Amino acid sequence: MNPALPVQIVRYRNGEVIERADELAAEEPLEIRIEGHSVAVLMRTPGQDRELAAGFLVTENLVRRADEIFEITVCGEAPGGADESNVANVTLKNPASFNPSKFSRNLFSSSSCGICGKASIDAIAQQFSPITSELKISAELLLELPTHLSAAQETFQRTGGLHACALFDETGKLFGTREDVGRHNALDKLIGYALLKNCLPLARHILLLSGRVSFEMVQKSLAAGITIIAAISAPTSLAVEFARANNQTLIGFLRGDHMNVYAGTERIVHT
Amino acid sequence: MNPALPVQIVRYRNGEVIERADELAAEEPLEIRIEGHSVAVLMRTPGQDRELAAGFLVTENLVRRADEIFEITVCGEAPGGADESNVANVTLKNPASFNPSKFSRNLFSSSSCGICGKASIDAIAQQFSPITSELKISAELLLELPTHLSAAQETFQRTGGLHACALFDETGKLFGTREDVGRHNALDKLIGYALLKNCLPLARHILLLSGRVSFEMVQKSLAAGITIIAAISAPTSLAVEFARANNQTLIGFLRGDHMNVYAGTERIVHT
Repeated sequence: MNPALPVQIVRYRNGEVIERADELAAEEPLEIRIEGHSVAVLMRTPGQDRELAAGFLVTENLVRRADEIFEITVCGEAPGGADESNVANVTLKNPASFNPSKFSRNLFSSSSCGICGKASIDAIAQQFSPITSELKISAELLLELPTHLSAAQETFQRTGGLHACALFDETGKLFGTREDVGRHNALDKLIGYALLKNCLPLARHILLLSGRVSFEMVQKSLAAGITIIAAISAPTSLAVEFARANNQTLIGFLRGDHMNVYAGTERIVHT
Repeated sequence: MNPALPVQIVRYRNGEVIERADELAAEEPLEIRIEGHSVAVLMRTPGQDRELAAGFLVTENLVRRADEIFEITVCGEAPGGADESNVANVTLKNPASFNPSKFSRNLFSSSSCGICGKASIDAIAQQFSPITSELKISAELLLELPTHLSAAQETFQRTGGLHACALFDETGKLFGTREDVGRHNALDKLIGYALLKNCLPLARHILLLSGRVSFEMVQKSLAAGITIIAAISAPTSLAVEFARANNQTLIGFLRGDHMNVYAGTERIVHT
């Protein structure tokens, strides 16, 4: 499935009107079913749907190792066939471990208490263990990473419509990169890829995000055990608070010769 | 409540390391309760929470006019007090019109059919009427709008962390603008503001978005009857498909002297 789709548009430029062909970032719903129960429909860019489902299982705290998954199949997927395949069916090694009545797609939406920022952070922090990794990374290595991300953002170059994320090992070597119309999906795909390669937790990896960092992105990273999160743009207040509470390193505005460190500064060494 | 919060950071720049004060876009959960039932927790920038709840009611197809709402109160809100007020309580004029067992926060998540892009668009399109407005707007007027949006993005300038949206009338006069860490929230706040001023449907208004346009943003616009949607960045394939199916005008890459028109070109006049 092509992540970019053709479209005819009308372009106004400097007083001129022209009709021309262009490309759009593809967006389609993917329904995720676990043991036959529909648990979510994600608006995503088609492609790497097994990874997306696998990453979703990790970040929703349903699975921690690849061998807990029996199978993920994407309906209607046929070699060379037209893949209007928008359902991912998950079966687990231990089906009894999944309780559909307790499962709520969105961690936040399940709260019924009188919620406040602090209370909800505490509640969610208990789901995943804080980071214990003593990884150290040089500031110089971090500053070089955005160049690799831009090079990998193939579809973004054509459509301007995708979020990207990438994982690097501690030597700065690219481990993987994913793009999607939804930033959460891009990260779930990347985490799913790592899960299926038996690489979780990612305690010695660095995550790089193309955009801004919300609370939910930091929380997903924690689910995968990611120690260092760096982003091209700004974090939110709750993203910083959560990263500090869970001993993660959080970097923003990683651009050119500078970066801002919001949490876990002790992991960055400056030569 | 200040939409920007202070933080101490460490900044690396050009080989130098300095500690300094900075500001972050505030992010906190808001729980929305309708007739006592918790229906959603939104991660939002505090402020304009009544509007956010009101807009949420519109875009989730629960309310079309302000007089269908009896009251929206935000817990713990006290004049000049510390407002850690993260619950919005909605009561309706006709409480029986709300069926909590049928309500699902996310329109997509409620689908249990074998979903495909086309089927889901059809299903959702039926919830809101297509646009019938014969509004015409000059290309020149549209090209001037981004300047007004930048001027209104006060918190973005300080934190780099907020999405913005604005409504203009057909003469190009600014009707309102809202910022939020979540793009959906910024739009819900703006739509809520219009609802509470009894200005829905917004058939003769233009919506301007600071970022990209997903399917869900176009669908929320349709809920408010918005005829023309313009964005600084790219739309997705499903956003374009949905806008065309509902007779909306959709413009992307509105920057400088140019713009791309993806749907409803006939509304744009070129002098």
